Amino acid sequence: MLEEELLSTHLQELRRGTVVLACLLVLKRPNYGYALLDLLNRQGFAVDANTLYPLLRRLEKQALLTSDWNTEESRPRKFYRTSAKGEALADTLSSDWDDLAAAFRLLKGEL
Amino acid sequence: MLEEELLSTHLQELRRGTVVLACLLVLKRPNYGYALLDLLNRQGFAVDANTLYPLLRRLEKQALLTSDWNTEESRPRKFYRTSAKGEALADTLSSDWDDLAAAFRLLKGEL
Repeated sequence: MLEEELLSTHLQELRRGTVVLACLLVLKRPNYGYALLDLLNRQGFAVDANTLYPLLRRLEKQALLTSDWNTEESRPRKFYRTSAKGEALADTLSSDWDDLAAAFRLLKGEL
Repeated sequence: MLEEELLSTHLQELRRGTVVLACLLVLKRPNYGYALLDLLNRQGFAVDANTLYPLLRRLEKQALLTSDWNTEESRPRKFYRTSAKGEALADTLSSDWDDLAAAFRLLKGEL
């Protein structure tokens, strides 16, 4: 039987980098934090607000995302969008991901 | 143009968890550090000795791997093998990986 904590550490480690890539891909269309959170979870990327919101700020600081306040609705919302630099990173990470996926298929096929 | 450091951080983050899974899968057949390093790199899992060797010790400490010294050859070698607990973790991580891979395929198909 696996201890909860051990499992959770390794699952988090496996998922951590994928959330960055998922954000960069999804935010080619501008979106705000809560809607993005909901969308990622529905798409199968398990992430919670305490992880996602700081991550969005970090990616903005790294100039991988840009942000704009939308004040047209009653409640102002900060919309994030992937920058050109963010798209370049997304391309590189995507291709790395594809290589990893291929490596796992090969590995599992051989076992 | 992406700064080297930014790119390398994100690539490492994306790859980190996958090396654990790859080790647990490959070490269902016992193997020693250097041969494993070589095999992982040939299979497409970029990892260096400074990352892999401490990782093997960590996984052994977590009882996910067991080890045995093979002293039959001129140079004694420590062989690692995935434990039953390690196999259970590998199953869980594999299925999480498959879910993530499916989520990315869906996401990319929609963009």
